[in-house]
Amino acid sequence: MRLSRYFLPILKETPKEAEIVSHRLMLRAGMIRQQSAGIYSWLPLGHRVLTRIGQIVREEQNRAGALELLMPTIQSADLWRESGRYDDYGKEMLRIEDRHEREMLYGPTNEEMITEIFRSYVRSYRDLPLNLYHIQWKFRDEVRPRFGVMRGREFLMKDAYSFDVDQEAARHAYNKMFVAYLRTFARLGLKAIPMRADSGPIGGDMSHEFIILAATGESQVFCDKALLEMPIPGEDTDFDADLTPVVKSWTSHYAATEEKHDEAAFAALPEDARVAARGIEVGHIFYFGTKYSEPMGAKVATPDGAERPVHMGSYGVGVSRLAAGLIEASHDEQGIIWPDSVAPFDVGLISLKVGDAKVDAACADLYEKLGKAGRDVLYDDTDGRPGAKFATMDLIGLPWQLIVGPKGLNDGLVELKRRATGERETLTPEAALNKLTGTR
Amino acid sequence: MRLSRYFLPILKETPKEAEIVSHRLMLRAGMIRQQSAGIYSWLPLGHRVLTRIGQIVREEQNRAGALELLMPTIQSADLWRESGRYDDYGKEMLRIEDRHEREMLYGPTNEEMITEIFRSYVRSYRDLPLNLYHIQWKFRDEVRPRFGVMRGREFLMKDAYSFDVDQEAARHAYNKMFVAYLRTFARLGLKAIPMRADSGPIGGDMSHEFIILAATGESQVFCDKALLEMPIPGEDTDFDADLTPVVKSWTSHYAATEEKHDEAAFAALPEDARVAARGIEVGHIFYFGTKYSEPMGAKVATPDGAERPVHMGSYGVGVSRLAAGLIEASHDEQGIIWPDSVAPFDVGLISLKVGDAKVDAACADLYEKLGKAGRDVLYDDTDGRPGAKFATMDLIGLPWQLIVGPKGLNDGLVELKRRATGERETLTPEAALNKLTGTR
Repeated sequence: MRLSRYFLPILKETPKEAEIVSHRLMLRAGMIRQQSAGIYSWLPLGHRVLTRIGQIVREEQNRAGALELLMPTIQSADLWRESGRYDDYGKEMLRIEDRHEREMLYGPTNEEMITEIFRSYVRSYRDLPLNLYHIQWKFRDEVRPRFGVMRGREFLMKDAYSFDVDQEAARHAYNKMFVAYLRTFARLGLKAIPMRADSGPIGGDMSHEFIILAATGESQVFCDKALLEMPIPGEDTDFDADLTPVVKSWTSHYAATEEKHDEAAFAALPEDARVAARGIEVGHIFYFGTKYSEPMGAKVATPDGAERPVHMGSYGVGVSRLAAGLIEASHDEQGIIWPDSVAPFDVGLISLKVGDAKVDAACADLYEKLGKAGRDVLYDDTDGRPGAKFATMDLIGLPWQLIVGPKGLNDGLVELKRRATGERETLTPEAALNKLTGTR
Repeated sequence: MRLSRYFLPILKETPKEAEIVSHRLMLRAGMIRQQSAGIYSWLPLGHRVLTRIGQIVREEQNRAGALELLMPTIQSADLWRESGRYDDYGKEMLRIEDRHEREMLYGPTNEEMITEIFRSYVRSYRDLPLNLYHIQWKFRDEVRPRFGVMRGREFLMKDAYSFDVDQEAARHAYNKMFVAYLRTFARLGLKAIPMRADSGPIGGDMSHEFIILAATGESQVFCDKALLEMPIPGEDTDFDADLTPVVKSWTSHYAATEEKHDEAAFAALPEDARVAARGIEVGHIFYFGTKYSEPMGAKVATPDGAERPVHMGSYGVGVSRLAAGLIEASHDEQGIIWPDSVAPFDVGLISLKVGDAKVDAACADLYEKLGKAGRDVLYDDTDGRPGAKFATMDLIGLPWQLIVGPKGLNDGLVELKRRATGERETLTPEAALNKLTGTR
């Protein structure tokens, strides 16, 4: 993409309303625009990041055997009356009346609807296990939306729902999502720690929040340092196999949010193993048994011939929230530092002298070859000062900057900068190409 | 995907509520489920089709230089008061009050919001041309939603908005979308005819509906037969070049909806060139000048130093509607016939004897090799009768059926069926693989 043809409305001033760094940087980098309180447009650069995050989430859900569908945003109130949540949900639910005065709502979550879908079609344990997910916009009418897309009212979430014949089978479904989440966050370039979370009235050990550590995190968390270096299950993980050993290895180390924190257990760790840090919740997996299937009559025939309510779990990832979470976890004074996997473009190609025939030709050649090799390039072909160009590239945080100027070209050289480390290298255009096309 | 692990709730009975064939077939094939009047879930099979349609639309928008962003579904009423449409829009607009009693709405379209984004950042003709689009869910509270996703209340639309310094430049933007639409619908396997449409109070010739012909279409249309055989602009089209000749070649032949029909002009065509048929609108492109930029103050500095309202056009494609439109245009008594480009899977692999070691092995081998070659395969590994398996595959309309049974394997042969033509071929597994991996 040529910057001269792109829509990248960089802000020079730091927006006053933004309280946290990700919100400031997303506004400054032209990623988002607030349309109403807690409601954002994703401008082209932001949209690219959102899409790449969603795609990684999707790939790992699919790998774990979950099936993608798409439920609508608008739901009927009657559906929520079946579970008893319509009256309980309170003011965070955006309630709507249509032209025929039917009570509707903008879905804040989809347990009821997915249970309705399940009960409409599935009758037998032979059709299980089943895990259905979608990546869809939700609405929660927060009383005071803030922190940009970190706590927006309209937000994009991946929510999966598992259906199993009994609790034992449900545990396997839970473990699959546990492993899928480890892989998802690792691929996003994040260290996410599963922390035991409140399991509500059901009790048990099947409720974990996945939390990333960031100095600006919303809550205090505590964990064993060992968790920061644990190996991530590989691409070749067999999701049909027993995943208990993986889950056990992660849950046997201390990790807790402030709510669940056990000071004594934490103090029992060696001092240099104690990590007390700020965290941001980016995912939550949760077994809730027959909480919805029972009142809503979602039953299956079991092998013994009886009909029993199906056992369910839900598994959420905050996709739009992750765009902000990634920035909280990875930025510096100059701006965003995107992990390779979610960067809106792989390379920023900077022309230091637009109009110089040699520079133009070298840039055009690099742009074309990188594109053919499958690299997404943002080519700054605008007539700006080098300093401003560098500042913009640092701000938007593309992993690589490839800098082409008349002086270097006279010696047959260009410059390559790695955004994350600031490391610079002077090399031939061919060497730069080789390096950039072998990196992903 | 193994069918035993998929969620494909085929209906045996024809649903009574469905009045048109696409609605019936989408319900029977387990593509969609109605959640409320005019509001649907897209089940896994339907979701795959929706995604593939959206991706083709996206690729052709990008090729024509349009930039993708994503605006939210919920908008503020104040924004619509600026254009004067809040009161005009009537009951089709889903109006919402949030917890602070602010007036909001579920966007039926996005002219106001995109104009607000534009005016917030763009000041000069030097930043033009600009064309911004998104693929987002919209809501129109139809008084009587019907025909499934053909006329749903919550529906997925691609809407693009162009911004230009004057009408001449806007015509180039319009022509680019005209060509992009020709390419988009052709890639979807459709013959879509651009037909002169009402341009409202602005007048002029820059308003076209793109209409596909289908026996079950919603409206009567008339056109010159030559339009059915016109060449489609190639992938190598230069969108910076003057596209007037392409647009002229398409608009010089007679084509009109019933509203715009000119009986005398139609009668002047040779009799065998007159096509009177039923049509379905799948896209609309429209230049509306300064209709929104003027009241909303979206101005740019022009080369002569003056500030003038920007010239705009909008360009819509009904993405969810297209899923139904494709079926209306392509089906038979047995079910859907998907064009290769949007089929939910490329190949249906049918095992005629699950549990037979030789059949299982041959199927597993074909399944693996097709997958490695990038083909999406739905592998019917369930324990059903051959007749039911064939009926399901015909119903869901995958382009190819690859049939593996013990008798054929004894002679080293499998069967390949092309859904569209019914043509069958007996050949070795290797020959089938070669044929299937060279087809797209």
